[in-house]
Amino acid sequence: MTQRILVVNPNSNERVTGEIAAAVTCLRIAGGPIIDCATLAEGPPGIETQVHVDMVVEPLLRLAQRESNGTSAFVIACFSDPGLYSLREALDMPVFGIAESGFSLALTKGERFGIISILRRSIPRHRRYVASLGLGARLAGDRAIEMGVSALGQADLVGCAGMARYRKALQDRLGIPVVDPVQAAVGLAQLTLQLEAQA
Amino acid sequence: MTQRILVVNPNSNERVTGEIAAAVTCLRIAGGPIIDCATLAEGPPGIETQVHVDMVVEPLLRLAQRESNGTSAFVIACFSDPGLYSLREALDMPVFGIAESGFSLALTKGERFGIISILRRSIPRHRRYVASLGLGARLAGDRAIEMGVSALGQADLVGCAGMARYRKALQDRLGIPVVDPVQAAVGLAQLTLQLEAQA
Amino acid sequence: MTQRILVVNPNSNERVTGEIAAAVTCLRIAGGPIIDCATLAEGPPGIETQVHVDMVVEPLLRLAQRESNGTSAFVIACFSDPGLYSLREALDMPVFGIAESGFSLALTKGERFGIISILRRSIPRHRRYVASLGLGARLAGDRAIEMGVSALGQADLVGCAGMARYRKALQDRLGIPVVDPVQAAVGLAQLTLQLEAQA
Amino acid sequence: MTQRILVVNPNSNERVTGEIAAAVTCLRIAGGPIIDCATLAEGPPGIETQVHVDMVVEPLLRLAQRESNGTSAFVIACFSDPGLYSLREALDMPVFGIAESGFSLALTKGERFGIISILRRSIPRHRRYVASLGLGARLAGDRAIEMGVSALGQADLVGCAGMARYRKALQDRLGIPVVDPVQAAVGLAQLTLQLEAQA
Amino acid sequence: MTQRILVVNPNSNERVTGEIAAAVTCLRIAGGPIIDCATLAEGPPGIETQVHVDMVVEPLLRLAQRESNGTSAFVIACFSDPGLYSLREALDMPVFGIAESGFSLALTKGERFGIISILRRSIPRHRRYVASLGLGARLAGDRAIEMGVSALGQADLVGCAGMARYRKALQDRLGIPVVDPVQAAVGLAQLTLQLEAQA
Amino acid sequence: MTQRILVVNPNSNERVTGEIAAAVTCLRIAGGPIIDCATLAEGPPGIETQVHVDMVVEPLLRLAQRESNGTSAFVIACFSDPGLYSLREALDMPVFGIAESGFSLALTKGERFGIISILRRSIPRHRRYVASLGLGARLAGDRAIEMGVSALGQADLVGCAGMARYRKALQDRLGIPVVDPVQAAVGLAQLTLQLEAQA
Repeated sequence: MTQRILVVNPNSNERVTGEIAAAVTCLRIAGGPIIDCATLAEGPPGIETQVHVDMVVEPLLRLAQRESNGTSAFVIACFSDPGLYSLREALDMPVFGIAESGFSLALTKGERFGIISILRRSIPRHRRYVASLGLGARLAGDRAIEMGVSALGQADLVGCAGMARYRKALQDRLGIPVVDPVQAAVGLAQLTLQLEAQA
Repeated sequence: MTQRILVVNPNSNERVTGEIAAAVTCLRIAGGPIIDCATLAEGPPGIETQVHVDMVVEPLLRLAQRESNGTSAFVIACFSDPGLYSLREALDMPVFGIAESGFSLALTKGERFGIISILRRSIPRHRRYVASLGLGARLAGDRAIEMGVSALGQADLVGCAGMARYRKALQDRLGIPVVDPVQAAVGLAQLTLQLEAQA
Repeated sequence: MTQRILVVNPNSNERVTGEIAAAVTCLRIAGGPIIDCATLAEGPPGIETQVHVDMVVEPLLRLAQRESNGTSAFVIACFSDPGLYSLREALDMPVFGIAESGFSLALTKGERFGIISILRRSIPRHRRYVASLGLGARLAGDRAIEMGVSALGQADLVGCAGMARYRKALQDRLGIPVVDPVQAAVGLAQLTLQLEAQA
Repeated sequence: MTQRILVVNPNSNERVTGEIAAAVTCLRIAGGPIIDCATLAEGPPGIETQVHVDMVVEPLLRLAQRESNGTSAFVIACFSDPGLYSLREALDMPVFGIAESGFSLALTKGERFGIISILRRSIPRHRRYVASLGLGARLAGDRAIEMGVSALGQADLVGCAGMARYRKALQDRLGIPVVDPVQAAVGLAQLTLQLEAQA
Repeated sequence: MTQRILVVNPNSNERVTGEIAAAVTCLRIAGGPIIDCATLAEGPPGIETQVHVDMVVEPLLRLAQRESNGTSAFVIACFSDPGLYSLREALDMPVFGIAESGFSLALTKGERFGIISILRRSIPRHRRYVASLGLGARLAGDRAIEMGVSALGQADLVGCAGMARYRKALQDRLGIPVVDPVQAAVGLAQLTLQLEAQA
Repeated sequence: MTQRILVVNPNSNERVTGEIAAAVTCLRIAGGPIIDCATLAEGPPGIETQVHVDMVVEPLLRLAQRESNGTSAFVIACFSDPGLYSLREALDMPVFGIAESGFSLALTKGERFGIISILRRSIPRHRRYVASLGLGARLAGDRAIEMGVSALGQADLVGCAGMARYRKALQDRLGIPVVDPVQAAVGLAQLTLQLEAQA
């Protein structure tokens, strides 16, 4: 049976979902898992606060359970990894958060990693999360561009889980590897499915 | 105007709330803040999983916002500190989680602290939280008694946020200080209010 | 029997003791423990060096033992926590250092804490202490105002253990919680006594 | 042009290389990069000591440079990641070590990871490496099965970089995710190539 | 002018001082610094508690200042390094504590170091100290032999700062390097003097 | 029999070896171990990259084994400590790396240590090494002077393992202790031999 990775954008901004879908196109493999990208209708227009983060967990969990039947792996496409541990607990399939996945992939690319954040007020939240993952010694810094997700949507720039289109340009400009967290998570999901499918 | 500390038991077990109220009786001060203990009607009978933790944040936040008018400080009486950062962000008052408060008070009592947990499966969750707080080096260990909150309620023992009645006995038996996290949080809330009330 | 918290200023500057007493006035509770503030006559005018810190331990310990009979809890009101572990070992009552207590209370107020120091040369001493407490990951920084305790006494500013009168103004100005370590320690002492008095 | 991942077994045991090739079969994608597995002729029969580790770097580097023309990514298939930083410095392509890759993938699977080692004497070497990666807080333990690589080859078990065939059985038996480091590294190499190939 | 290293045993047990002197005999160099070993008359018979540690700082400092004129380096021969930072601050010469020196030398001998303690109650004190030095990740363990210094004196074994005579036997028995902290400190003092004497 | 410390400069620059020999002159003791300084003929003119580091391990090991008969202790005189663990494993004598030794000695001189590096690109390598040693909390910083070893040789300044002649001047200028890592390593080697020679 065909496998399917379900990538959920926990904000309700369809444009962000579109960017996410575009970002993972390059990962689609003939004969490989289907990669579906969905929008969490109940999500806020952008996830910019801790309250936003916490409030999407319930609808996200409901969506995941509703979809669990035809789904082989689940990706939470928001850099705060909302509900990651709940979904892992509740679902009988691998679940990936884009922040955790992005950090994991970045660990193989250089001595330390930095974070490009949307808003400054997210930085303490990121720092707590990085600390909880035991990765504090690898974090070089965290810089915010200070544009809200809505502003990003009006500009031609679509935010935290939809920045993949800037990855290459940034990487060339900076001369260091740049990881897009959505691509990291979907890639790790795909890898995990390939390995589990093995006889 | 009289100040008020609202202590919310995020599970729906009224007996646990009763134990919480009993635990903080000794902290009531004539002329000091009122200490009210409430039950989160929407909560599960016991908070035993990550899903339980995440699912109570929304009703907890709604309750806190509903009650915010006559409230001076808020205490989340569950050892997983559900919603702590969301409530801090959303409310214009000090918010205390019983785990964080218990750890903080314990830091002044000895070189390292241990945790008595209800269920073994909570231990990784605790460990992540202690790590996110940067307190890993002070954690001596975490032992579970392996009784669910419901079982605890049927026995004469009322669980995580309602174990204060065993504090003294344990302390005498072990010969080391034992901290009840609910008492720690309410005490720190009270202290904070006293200091903020200062001209 | 009435309980009593003895707060000792380990420098011999009575004006600092006066500031300490003023700082804890707001914590006095009708029917609660008496809070007495004493000056260590043998102390130097200000505790500004490691030698000062180490030299006050002996007279502090003697004072504490002399006073132990009518005392329920002891507070060492100097930000270097001189003699904290000795007094804990020698006295059969809870002992609080204002630095440790200040850090503990600060942990419940935000993601990281900073220190306002009197003199730059104290910073390595603080850093060692914070490291020994395992709290290095929570320390955001340490800034010195570079005024000796004596200079502070001649100005209208009375130093490390007597800065409480500036707390509120600083907090309003900075827009983040400011903790006065003397108030933190006396508050934690009071909380501990309330809890231990419980039947 | 077709991309190619070159996986080099730094020991000279062809049977181990055969196991490596078998391990990554499931990762081959129609139209995806070729995955070639090579044996380092100059390597020792098994890499069991620090001297073995250090001595293979030079021939490994020579092989990598010789092969660099038609190669898109390089995988060092020995759990000590010999020469990882040298190859990254010398080659103009992504280089993966199986230990680093295995740790990175494992970080997305659970709270902590453990290591199954061949020989006890490798454990301090692993611990130093995990520390240098800043991952010490995530390491649960390291257990050795105490069979040399040669012994492993004579049994039907082919060692550190060739244990993939036991992954599934171990995972089912233990009830926790088991990561094969060769598969992790080749998977991350493939993912990286897919992403870099993106227009 | 001849240089002189003054090694002070901060307990008043002359037998321990004799052992210390014997321990450093092998370090004496013709034409090198004189190594004098002194007993702190005001010290307790053994330094077994935090109070003992703190109480010897003042007489130790007085002794050091009295002797500073003809002294080039100072060694504090007690494993709690009493007064180390005070003496460093007050004296214009290098000061060595035997614990800090022992740890430093041990770092060059293996992946982690262990501590053989006299009494179990010293272990939390050691752990705090190791943490304050930032060396926690290198500490393998701390085992107490549970004999007080006086008991050790009556047996043929002379305690924390006088165990050098057992070093070799232990090392041979255990098959791992064993460091005597007094020898480490005096050796490092001597090395430092040699280097500072350099034109 | 006379003991001998063999100090090997792993780059092939004889001038650096000359500087090393000059640096350790002050450590020679009448009747003490002979200190011989040798140049690794197979080494590159300067060790400036990870490849240089890894490539010298094999000839260094061969040299060490060839010389092991008349040698009592071995010092690797390059700040990247190439081959340290291999030589420790392969030789039946104490082996010292100058970086590890320099850090160890520096730990006894102040609260934190800094590193003066030759080239900026070495800093991540240093940071990984310091992390692997568990000393990250003691590292204050790492500054590069940005001159290659060859450039240093043409100037009157002879590089990483040959900077001892600047130690004193730097120390006086900065007002803090400055450690030359070659001197630290040879001093620790000498101390270790003295102690092992003890009956």
